[in-house]
Amino acid sequence: MAHALALATRGLGNTWPNPAVGCVIIRDGRVLGRGWTQPGGRPHAETMALAQAGNAARGATAYVTLEPCAHHGKTPPCAEALIAAGVARVVVALTDPDPRVSGRGIAMLQTAGIEVTQGVAEARARQQQRGFLTRITQGRPMLTLKLGSSFDGRIATASGESQWITGPEARRHVHALRLTHDAVMVGGGTARADRPALNVRGMGTVRQPVRIVVSSQKVLDMPPDGPEHGPLWQVSGEPAEFMAELGARGLTRVFCEGGGVLAAGLMRAGLVDQLIGYSAGLVLGGDARPGIASMGLQHLADAPRFRLVECRRIGPDVMHRWLRD
Amino acid sequence: MAHALALATRGLGNTWPNPAVGCVIIRDGRVLGRGWTQPGGRPHAETMALAQAGNAARGATAYVTLEPCAHHGKTPPCAEALIAAGVARVVVALTDPDPRVSGRGIAMLQTAGIEVTQGVAEARARQQQRGFLTRITQGRPMLTLKLGSSFDGRIATASGESQWITGPEARRHVHALRLTHDAVMVGGGTARADRPALNVRGMGTVRQPVRIVVSSQKVLDMPPDGPEHGPLWQVSGEPAEFMAELGARGLTRVFCEGGGVLAAGLMRAGLVDQLIGYSAGLVLGGDARPGIASMGLQHLADAPRFRLVECRRIGPDVMHRWLRD
Repeated sequence: MAHALALATRGLGNTWPNPAVGCVIIRDGRVLGRGWTQPGGRPHAETMALAQAGNAARGATAYVTLEPCAHHGKTPPCAEALIAAGVARVVVALTDPDPRVSGRGIAMLQTAGIEVTQGVAEARARQQQRGFLTRITQGRPMLTLKLGSSFDGRIATASGESQWITGPEARRHVHALRLTHDAVMVGGGTARADRPALNVRGMGTVRQPVRIVVSSQKVLDMPPDGPEHGPLWQVSGEPAEFMAELGARGLTRVFCEGGGVLAAGLMRAGLVDQLIGYSAGLVLGGDARPGIASMGLQHLADAPRFRLVECRRIGPDVMHRWLRD
Repeated sequence: MAHALALATRGLGNTWPNPAVGCVIIRDGRVLGRGWTQPGGRPHAETMALAQAGNAARGATAYVTLEPCAHHGKTPPCAEALIAAGVARVVVALTDPDPRVSGRGIAMLQTAGIEVTQGVAEARARQQQRGFLTRITQGRPMLTLKLGSSFDGRIATASGESQWITGPEARRHVHALRLTHDAVMVGGGTARADRPALNVRGMGTVRQPVRIVVSSQKVLDMPPDGPEHGPLWQVSGEPAEFMAELGARGLTRVFCEGGGVLAAGLMRAGLVDQLIGYSAGLVLGGDARPGIASMGLQHLADAPRFRLVECRRIGPDVMHRWLRD
């Protein structure tokens, strides 16, 4: 299952509105097929792995990170494909909460006489599927908020100078993270002031994430869609509303890069699921620009709290990653 | 020498105005004596190690983290003691820049026919002696600035609520760090608002650090000296001036715990040598109190920069330690 989870990560940011799934087919200790959800969400991981395994799949065990689908969409259901291939056993990490599946995939397999084991590495799979699960259960994408700041949490001097606070290694890490998200989001102020490219650079040829600008005013001078830039979407209004709109349009994982006002709004509305900080070794002081604007909190007990999952050095900076439970 | 350096750390915070030194005496691969500078700075490390080794020191090698002293102070010089004990070889990490020593200790040993090797693990020794060296060369103690803050660099809500942002593990770590410093310093505002104990707790019976309050007004209601609290010193004025005063009074290592105005003043004056951050997983927003007050910086190039030396999880928080080169 660890192998299947590792394969699934290849699809993160690349399969929306579908989940990024991994599948490994094994018999007698030999890997016969490996698959992961392909760009755009199709073919599914099971289809890829079964095609690789061919007739050898008969009597084998399939490990899948998410319950195989049971509904006829643009492709026939994966549960049917696993039955047709004659696999003897299916090991599933996580049940699919999508109402069109929700246990029906597993039931189809069992009815066909296939042994099904559920809940293997479920916690890891749940974390990996957080974007997909948040969209299904809350109707909005999972949101990662990134903050690259000085030691004291500042993103620019009072005069607005911000290039560069963190080092090139941290900036490269950000590009790798953009790649695992469906969309990159900034506020209108940042879009107008910095004219950010909001694309993935230095990672070879990739499917570019959607660019989202949150602004009620027209944002000019953004480059058009193309191989270097994903589609440009503009949204506005209350955070909960535009996040629901993004969920309705199919996004599962959104990467927000500020500015401070947008970050504070998302934070106050309880919409931030993951927090990634890059802290640099310089000090800018209390008159420099804060990474997160005013939140109007009176008490510490009201502050949103996150759990540390990772911290390490990246180049000259500290990277720390936190999750909302 | 690694062993001698480890022994020397036991004295940090406990030997001012003297340096914290470590000494190991070895012959034929056997450790005959180990010593470190005792509380208050005396006896010296060499005296302790030679007393342990006794007559066995004849023909042995002594490893010392700092050049043995050559001057008659309250005790006879260590160089003389090493000669009298008949050691054959002395390995020294760092030459003592104190003008009363400054190579004279090594010369005394060499004149007596002892083989001297210098510069072994010098970089580590220099880092360990940073407080002593800063006092000798710049006339002020080394300064560590500690900041326990939210993810976004805030130390309290706008209304002043600050207990607790970081977890008990980080607070315990702070007590361990206070113990390795000669004095704990806070600004007058913090002293009046929080009435901090500024002592070491939960670490057994220890020599309490000096308490320093930076304020031009009288600070009332601080507990008197005693086993639970170190001497209380009040200073005021420009940071460079009161730091020179503290150096003249013999301090080598000062641990500053805020508040934001004092921190900004020390930072702006280029007096911060070490920066220790504890970042917690909560977000307080731009209207909450900053850990470092206004510094009036116009350009990033003017910001003080520090080099990351350590980052790791401490309880639920991230600890990151930086040095000014």
